[in-house]
Amino acid sequence: MPHQKTPDNPPARLSLISRHLAPDYPINTPYAVERLPDTVDTSLLPKTQIRAISSSPTMSSQPPHPTLLIPGPIEFDDAVLQSMSHYSESHVAPGFVATFGETLSMLRKLFQTTDAASQPFVLSGSGTLGWDLIAANLIEPGEDVLVLGTGYFSDGFADCLAVYGAKVTELKAAVGSRPRLPEIEKALSEKHYKAITITHVDTSTGVLSELANLSALVHRVSPDTLVFVDGVCSVACEELDFDGWMLDGVVTASQKAIGCPAGLSISMFSGRAIKVLEARKTPPASYFASMKKWLPIMQNYENKKPSYFATPSPQLVHALHTALSQIFSKPLSERFARHKETSDRIKKAVADLGLKQVAPNPDDQAHGMTAIYLPETVQIPQILPSLAKRGVLFAGGIHKEIVTKYIRFGHMGVSVLDPSRGDIDRAIKALEEGLSECGYQKA
Amino acid sequence: MPHQKTPDNPPARLSLISRHLAPDYPINTPYAVERLPDTVDTSLLPKTQIRAISSSPTMSSQPPHPTLLIPGPIEFDDAVLQSMSHYSESHVAPGFVATFGETLSMLRKLFQTTDAASQPFVLSGSGTLGWDLIAANLIEPGEDVLVLGTGYFSDGFADCLAVYGAKVTELKAAVGSRPRLPEIEKALSEKHYKAITITHVDTSTGVLSELANLSALVHRVSPDTLVFVDGVCSVACEELDFDGWMLDGVVTASQKAIGCPAGLSISMFSGRAIKVLEARKTPPASYFASMKKWLPIMQNYENKKPSYFATPSPQLVHALHTALSQIFSKPLSERFARHKETSDRIKKAVADLGLKQVAPNPDDQAHGMTAIYLPETVQIPQILPSLAKRGVLFAGGIHKEIVTKYIRFGHMGVSVLDPSRGDIDRAIKALEEGLSECGYQKA
Repeated sequence: MPHQKTPDNPPARLSLISRHLAPDYPINTPYAVERLPDTVDTSLLPKTQIRAISSSPTMSSQPPHPTLLIPGPIEFDDAVLQSMSHYSESHVAPGFVATFGETLSMLRKLFQTTDAASQPFVLSGSGTLGWDLIAANLIEPGEDVLVLGTGYFSDGFADCLAVYGAKVTELKAAVGSRPRLPEIEKALSEKHYKAITITHVDTSTGVLSELANLSALVHRVSPDTLVFVDGVCSVACEELDFDGWMLDGVVTASQKAIGCPAGLSISMFSGRAIKVLEARKTPPASYFASMKKWLPIMQNYENKKPSYFATPSPQLVHALHTALSQIFSKPLSERFARHKETSDRIKKAVADLGLKQVAPNPDDQAHGMTAIYLPETVQIPQILPSLAKRGVLFAGGIHKEIVTKYIRFGHMGVSVLDPSRGDIDRAIKALEEGLSECGYQKA
Repeated sequence: MPHQKTPDNPPARLSLISRHLAPDYPINTPYAVERLPDTVDTSLLPKTQIRAISSSPTMSSQPPHPTLLIPGPIEFDDAVLQSMSHYSESHVAPGFVATFGETLSMLRKLFQTTDAASQPFVLSGSGTLGWDLIAANLIEPGEDVLVLGTGYFSDGFADCLAVYGAKVTELKAAVGSRPRLPEIEKALSEKHYKAITITHVDTSTGVLSELANLSALVHRVSPDTLVFVDGVCSVACEELDFDGWMLDGVVTASQKAIGCPAGLSISMFSGRAIKVLEARKTPPASYFASMKKWLPIMQNYENKKPSYFATPSPQLVHALHTALSQIFSKPLSERFARHKETSDRIKKAVADLGLKQVAPNPDDQAHGMTAIYLPETVQIPQILPSLAKRGVLFAGGIHKEIVTKYIRFGHMGVSVLDPSRGDIDRAIKALEEGLSECGYQKA
């Protein structure tokens, strides 16, 4: 915590001390342990405290800590974290209403939409809530949805759609790949789908979808099919042109490339999607996630008018405002280019180590993360602690078919954009040294 | 922001400056403007900047700002706000898993349950999400639910239940009152209800329900009816004995008496409720709010095992951990007594000013807020700015039948528990002076 003031009461102080002393064991994967509690044998993990290593050689108001390079949450900028400590404000007071309104307006720029009919939403919740927004508001029970299957996260999107009554067809690709345009065209010509869903980057595999071409195909072959995108691991690090690519909905979260702590579901919907919402035959199938409830609230905030459906988090919205202001201190195109350059450098280093990526085809590889197959002789409970000793936290696997065989390296936000932190160089060096410590030598 | 470091890039710095200069207009009601955009004539509001007045005469790491005394969000303690700035951690790293696990364990103490079958949940979301938890998981379509109608928030709970297919019977009381035990007994004897819902404190009226007696009645008359409580404006300021009162579910939010910024839905369910969840004939009707999905995750966190369904907010959970640690630095009974004493003092001051409360019966009056009818000659757009000029922010009305006729004074958390802040005395003095400025003299 920046400039942590010692709390006045002993339990809180003790708790802070214990947190600072808590060993950072390397089970830092967001997903590997999901429903797989037995795959990580914690008895193998180091029992001694790992020395915290500064995340940055430059001055930072954050205490020294290991560099978090998982595919979200990412490392956060000092000013963003400080915005999280904003003093308490009413969620309907003019100061906060202005902050929220500006935040919504900046999201239009981030998604690259100038169409006044496009509508941003910012709700308290996880990224997952974005799936519910689409499933409960823009699909009605019994309607067909085509899900492009790229891994764990497209499967999750499909599960969510089914909960709300959609008839889901999942077009699954092999692990590390994505459905190809001809098979998608075939699927679209065989049945009419209300919507297609695309996981722009599937965080389980690091597979990037070719969103522009895909959307063009849908608009050509099945023009009234809505195009919905899971942009959780893509928005703010992958090129995404909401208007130009004729997208109908993109849902994302705060804690990845946008660079704001977790706790916000962030989304953009097209005027066409809003018309579909308004024309529903049945009411939205969720209360908290009802876009009909939230639509006037978001419109009022952006028009600087106070409004209430459920209480937003002023602190998180301030942090998002700061993160977006930082993003727009430079052209978006430069941001995307920097992520691509850094990704290329990481992927070259991985290849130079003799390692393969889960996504073998360069055209299918994300630019904000790299999913790396481990050498057969190296196990996750060896390599992750070895990296952690070197002050770098990677994630384990999550895709169930390969869960123990790969690790994930997230490279988004300040770790990419602020080279003075040295995060990426340190991570590449740690990976080299860690693999060597685990007995791996390039063949 | 405590110890705000000037951000390095101009847009963010400008934004911070502009926020600090933003006039705090008095439309600080969380609810008055909800669906009533035309009831507040913003042309009446002061156009000049209101000087920010320190919230506390003692040293604080927060910049000077008006004291927020609406019924949530409340003023937050320095250490809680500083926890919001915690450096980035993986949501499945051992340090954070321990923090989350301890937080869940502390919630058992807060709700006063020692039954191992009770289950706490902490999800990213607003307090409203708690209604969805109950409606989508513990009621099946077509089942009858009896809603005790105390105002805007019980109406909202009823709406949410209906969205998920419950057959809702709302037993409505007159404004400022609550349904009485004999009529509730009559209702319970006329039809079998799967559940009854009680808004412990209806934030729209300041009406407190007699939860202990109510639950005893339900258990006597209709023992298999589940007892669900909206505790958004009661948990941590009103006595609530989860085990002793045989409650099946209490849902609340972070930003009220618990004293943690908004963004978390916090709830406790009984072993009986969890059995009902597990015995559902239909799947839960929500994906993000599926208690079946979250149950193993919460259990794993509390057992210090990493687990994933959707990414929680490490920063908000740290802040909640700090807030709960502070709560348990003193006995809960003392906390409740202090809220009651302060409430009594405020209610006496209101009566001494010749004003009436929306809840006329002392037994029906909440201890964390006071809903006050304005004199007929004083209007909301006069009194709220007058209070704001004196550094105190109250809320306007929200109950649609009386929306323009009353104001709400929130008195929860540090403003009550830390007398050195002087918040309550300053608010009472501001109310006296403000009414006088508006031309009101006690008859």
